[in-house]
Amino acid sequence: MEEDVRLLRWENRTEIPLFVLGLVYLAAYAVHVLAHGLPGAAHATLLAVIGAAWAGFLLDYVVRVRLSGRRFGVRYVATHLLDTVVLLLPLLRPLRAVEIYQVVQRRREQPRMSLYGRVIAYAGMAALLLGFSGALAVYQQERGAPHATIRTFGDAVWWVCETLTTVGYGDVTPVTVGGRVIAGFLMAMGLALLGAVTGSFSSWLYQVFAREGEVPPGR
Amino acid sequence: MEEDVRLLRWENRTEIPLFVLGLVYLAAYAVHVLAHGLPGAAHATLLAVIGAAWAGFLLDYVVRVRLSGRRFGVRYVATHLLDTVVLLLPLLRPLRAVEIYQVVQRRREQPRMSLYGRVIAYAGMAALLLGFSGALAVYQQERGAPHATIRTFGDAVWWVCETLTTVGYGDVTPVTVGGRVIAGFLMAMGLALLGAVTGSFSSWLYQVFAREGEVPPGR
Amino acid sequence: MEEDVRLLRWENRTEIPLFVLGLVYLAAYAVHVLAHGLPGAAHATLLAVIGAAWAGFLLDYVVRVRLSGRRFGVRYVATHLLDTVVLLLPLLRPLRAVEIYQVVQRRREQPRMSLYGRVIAYAGMAALLLGFSGALAVYQQERGAPHATIRTFGDAVWWVCETLTTVGYGDVTPVTVGGRVIAGFLMAMGLALLGAVTGSFSSWLYQVFAREGEVPPGR
Amino acid sequence: MEEDVRLLRWENRTEIPLFVLGLVYLAAYAVHVLAHGLPGAAHATLLAVIGAAWAGFLLDYVVRVRLSGRRFGVRYVATHLLDTVVLLLPLLRPLRAVEIYQVVQRRREQPRMSLYGRVIAYAGMAALLLGFSGALAVYQQERGAPHATIRTFGDAVWWVCETLTTVGYGDVTPVTVGGRVIAGFLMAMGLALLGAVTGSFSSWLYQVFAREGEVPPGR
Repeated sequence: MEEDVRLLRWENRTEIPLFVLGLVYLAAYAVHVLAHGLPGAAHATLLAVIGAAWAGFLLDYVVRVRLSGRRFGVRYVATHLLDTVVLLLPLLRPLRAVEIYQVVQRRREQPRMSLYGRVIAYAGMAALLLGFSGALAVYQQERGAPHATIRTFGDAVWWVCETLTTVGYGDVTPVTVGGRVIAGFLMAMGLALLGAVTGSFSSWLYQVFAREGEVPPGR
Repeated sequence: MEEDVRLLRWENRTEIPLFVLGLVYLAAYAVHVLAHGLPGAAHATLLAVIGAAWAGFLLDYVVRVRLSGRRFGVRYVATHLLDTVVLLLPLLRPLRAVEIYQVVQRRREQPRMSLYGRVIAYAGMAALLLGFSGALAVYQQERGAPHATIRTFGDAVWWVCETLTTVGYGDVTPVTVGGRVIAGFLMAMGLALLGAVTGSFSSWLYQVFAREGEVPPGR
Repeated sequence: MEEDVRLLRWENRTEIPLFVLGLVYLAAYAVHVLAHGLPGAAHATLLAVIGAAWAGFLLDYVVRVRLSGRRFGVRYVATHLLDTVVLLLPLLRPLRAVEIYQVVQRRREQPRMSLYGRVIAYAGMAALLLGFSGALAVYQQERGAPHATIRTFGDAVWWVCETLTTVGYGDVTPVTVGGRVIAGFLMAMGLALLGAVTGSFSSWLYQVFAREGEVPPGR
Repeated sequence: MEEDVRLLRWENRTEIPLFVLGLVYLAAYAVHVLAHGLPGAAHATLLAVIGAAWAGFLLDYVVRVRLSGRRFGVRYVATHLLDTVVLLLPLLRPLRAVEIYQVVQRRREQPRMSLYGRVIAYAGMAALLLGFSGALAVYQQERGAPHATIRTFGDAVWWVCETLTTVGYGDVTPVTVGGRVIAGFLMAMGLALLGAVTGSFSSWLYQVFAREGEVPPGR
């Protein structure tokens, strides 16, 4: 009981700093990948920032395991899967923006977003973040690879659009093993986003339908 | 209160003229892109028509902001997102045809379309309008580009079919930055159309199912 | 009232003959397209059979318009859209097999298929019929075209699989205008089939869920 | 009645052995396809193991037909379709792991998985098993084929990712008839997985929505 209170207090206090740290992480990674012309010292600094940010995320994770009063192990990882995924993929951390926005709204005593608004805000931000960080990661793997078709960051962004929507023209595709592993992950996310979009629409439609009390034409 | 009445009166009065203006806009844009052989003066006239139509849409938007009695700003744009999108993309304006058809039906005291009928009418018209204007826009970007695979308007239409259905063979693909930006927009629309189709079907099926009171075979 | 009885009697009587005629039509079309080595007289006979079958479908359509006691026109076509589509695309006629199977089951006083069984039977048969007749039609358009990638009937079947599932590798694609028009139609059908599959699954799942009275883990 | 008891007892007793046999089958097939350098005798042994495992599955099927007290025939195959499919495709047998896990949980008197947990566990394991065995089967067909683009097992895995998510870049595609038949089967499975994912999400969302008693913003 007391542990839950302390855990909650910790989470409330670290919410904003961790969100800012997530943005710093993303920015440092983006500059590291995209800025070719920087001197070696600058890249070393960026890598240090990335490492420090990640150390911060790890620290937060460890503190929360401790405060939860449970033993760390397979069971903990299984029940806190999302936290663990976000620890390993800090690029997704800015997704917390939706939660923070809601907290801010509540403090101002304004109505919170509707369910559909939240789903669409999450799916949209997830698509943007996944797309941006996926394009960065694939570009880092592919540039310089022989016979690569993804040669500029613009190509990488175009490839991400094709992939997340499952269109898949195939005019630009990853050719390295690292690029393909990232691609496989993005494809699975594309499926999930598709599910979020179609599922939201279906539920919304059914609700409208039920409210209007209409009887469909029948077969 | 009074403002709402005046806004409603304005919307009722401008409904038909704006719809016609939307068709004029679309037709002028299509002729401008497709008619190569026209003299320069004709193209100048078409561009003037396009500009005038868009000025009309802007005027309507401004009047409605005024009549709504609210201040224009981020909040207004957020709550009237669809209006703002249609202002920036007047090619979607003929979608209003579905609304107008319904108003006409009501005046004739005929039953209005069912929910599914409306969803399918919207999705179908949206697909046609998006497809046609997307094909025009991509064709305008791609023709003349070196190494372009979209060389005729027929290629552009074929490419739009592949894209909106998320099939994506990749035999013809945009190669210019402008073409790819338009393509990314069309892909996202393709996802939404997919959601509309699958969502409608799912809801309709569930309703039929519930009415027949059938018990599914169970797992 | 009396007209409805006469219409129903007509439909009951012509059900089986029209179904057989649909199979004859499909078989004659398939042999006409696939059998290269036949003498010209055989092809002429096949075309005569196709024409005769289609004349039979037209006759049935006209009789039903008459018996319905309504005037033929845009309104009639709109309310009997499916009948009109089947008149123009007799290759879909064998879909009636599902209805006939149900009538047979009822006569034997056996329980009719469940809703999901019917949806899956329809979607499965529709996919097979659309796939087979689409492959025939595209193969007829593409063979002999310069630079065609669909060169054998096997290629056409492979291309149909890619298209109906919206995978779209693009290793074989239609290059003629006729082939692309047929392809566009098949792509739209692919979307609808996808909707049928995902919609059925969603509804079935919701029903199971509701019956078990489970409360989901919540977000 | 008595037959049902005997059938149930048989199924309880053979559950674990058959599951282990399924894993053995999968492992032997994987080693047979992937290990090029093995001497001929090793491959003969692996084929013997595969044959023996399949004979075990056939024996189980025959015993269950007998114990069910029904005559074997079209009707039996139709009502036990899943069993028959698993007999012909023993690579799917490890899917039973989900059932076994649930039985174990019940014995330990722990709460069973929620419906969504089960659907996601099934869909995830089905995707992994189908992907792995599909990659093996296509690789076996394609390697050595002239003009093949799937040349390594890595290519085959990459191709499976593209196919199950319906992205379909087309940079690697099967060129043999055998490979294309397997591909067609995998595509259909891809559609079904898509349906499982989107359907689950839709149902879950609707339930959350109904519980929160929210009224959507309305159109």
